[in-house]
Amino acid sequence: MNATHDDVVRASARLEGLVRRTPLAQSATLDAMLGHRVRFKCECLQRVGAFKARGALNALLARAERGERPEHVVAFSSGNHAQAVAWAARERGIRATIVMPAGASEVKRLATAAYGAEVVLTPDRVTAEAESARRVADGATLIPPYDDDDVLAGQGTACLEALQDGAEPDAIFAPCGGGGLLSGTYLAARGRALVFGAEPQTANDAARSYREGRIVRFDRAPETVADGVQTLSLSERTFAHVRHSAGIYEISEDDIAYWTQWLTHLLKLTIEPTAALGMAAAHRWLRDRASRSTVLVILSGGNLSAATRARIWERERLGAPPRP
Amino acid sequence: MNATHDDVVRASARLEGLVRRTPLAQSATLDAMLGHRVRFKCECLQRVGAFKARGALNALLARAERGERPEHVVAFSSGNHAQAVAWAARERGIRATIVMPAGASEVKRLATAAYGAEVVLTPDRVTAEAESARRVADGATLIPPYDDDDVLAGQGTACLEALQDGAEPDAIFAPCGGGGLLSGTYLAARGRALVFGAEPQTANDAARSYREGRIVRFDRAPETVADGVQTLSLSERTFAHVRHSAGIYEISEDDIAYWTQWLTHLLKLTIEPTAALGMAAAHRWLRDRASRSTVLVILSGGNLSAATRARIWERERLGAPPRP
Repeated sequence: MNATHDDVVRASARLEGLVRRTPLAQSATLDAMLGHRVRFKCECLQRVGAFKARGALNALLARAERGERPEHVVAFSSGNHAQAVAWAARERGIRATIVMPAGASEVKRLATAAYGAEVVLTPDRVTAEAESARRVADGATLIPPYDDDDVLAGQGTACLEALQDGAEPDAIFAPCGGGGLLSGTYLAARGRALVFGAEPQTANDAARSYREGRIVRFDRAPETVADGVQTLSLSERTFAHVRHSAGIYEISEDDIAYWTQWLTHLLKLTIEPTAALGMAAAHRWLRDRASRSTVLVILSGGNLSAATRARIWERERLGAPPRP
Repeated sequence: MNATHDDVVRASARLEGLVRRTPLAQSATLDAMLGHRVRFKCECLQRVGAFKARGALNALLARAERGERPEHVVAFSSGNHAQAVAWAARERGIRATIVMPAGASEVKRLATAAYGAEVVLTPDRVTAEAESARRVADGATLIPPYDDDDVLAGQGTACLEALQDGAEPDAIFAPCGGGGLLSGTYLAARGRALVFGAEPQTANDAARSYREGRIVRFDRAPETVADGVQTLSLSERTFAHVRHSAGIYEISEDDIAYWTQWLTHLLKLTIEPTAALGMAAAHRWLRDRASRSTVLVILSGGNLSAATRARIWERERLGAPPRP
């Protein structure tokens, strides 16, 4: 049985007081530039710096409610999911092992270890899967990054809060990698607004899956500065929701850098390039609107490596202000 | 007569609802690393991206209360004061002329012009003073960046809010350029906590003035990445307060870059290097504390040029976490 809106509502109750109710931000300058209202759900200010804290903790809490009480969890990730599972496990007093590719940034390894997790570095994906599988065989519980109803319901709580806090959007925009955030957002909105996904042009498996009505899968991680959405494909579980969304925008690397710079400048928040995807998509949607509209953009996170930051700021893009 | 604590209280009442009551932020990770509590007053989230909005608007409102109703204001600044006066004038429906050195960044010029101000670019300080003086002779009112009781009382409202909002610090840290923010902070605290200033080692006129008991003045703008505190000297007005503060820390360029990176990383806020000065000073103060202490750090602003950003992130400093 697929997750529903009620699962997001239950997740929200579970997470209350344990994750941050992040603020809704806005920029009067941006609104004036575009002639529309843009509201931002600031998950870069979430615990561990990304919405992933919601899904990871909801997965642990929901399992505990069902009487499953994992004493040891394992996750495979080089990104925000790694820190999220490490943090959630510490919150619940559970042992965590995070399997990371050896190329993961020093900063992310340090952060994950700082949450008390055992960090296992592996040279490649095959070894990583073997390392994870060995621990699961020993009784550990795998917490998947998106292919899990509790995880995706948890991710949806960001949008739910924004709606409760008065965002009142005509349309909602979220980045799409494995589809966990977009699925949760779609469930949270439950028809109160259009829900769009956004992904890089170079990593457009979800857009192609949406068009073709079947899951399109990359053979290897696509190249994009938006390192939060480099997953190979949606899962059956997330595609079941994503296919009912209003559509997936494909965003150029230039537009990702442009909006990462502009949102950093206007909101004074640290956002990762993945978080700029939704704004780039919203901008395109708003351009076609005749009447003044309101959009909600889910700013997914704020964790940038030095290399990513350097790529984003390689060329100054603030000399060309956003136009309607 | 010098400004007093009551002037800050009156300024706060005047500004209520017109400037943002910026949040108090904290980082559980940083607190755990240092073994102390650090609270941040997030003036990077203030209107125009800096505390300067407070002083500029209070100057206009206080003048209006006294029956002076300037129809045209002028300011000389390449930095946050320029945008602050442009914004405050627009809020009050007053004409503004901002005289800027020709080297000011494109982004700052655009932002200032976007608030509706006339921007006059001048090749050097002498020409700038002449341009300003000409407008004052024609009846415009000059809004000084710090040498003004209404301006410095306005700046103090940031600290006052933080104290009202439960910061409960043992010590408060603010950057010191012309001394407006530090003076206002000192008045706001009124003995409820120690108040320290922080300035770059390379721009240590205030520290030297403090030690020598007389205003030490640079001949030309000192070189530092903290471009918010490149003023030549304190004024008699600000020195009268600054000399009673608990002291001025002198911060190395390395430490400025280090803390700018770490606060960006931990708080997910865009802060300018000047805002990192207070944290660097707080860190040194906390090192000598035997018992767990609480400090309040005024994060002055979040406006960085591309060049400044590149200098800060030239070398990654997140591999070496802060130590107690």
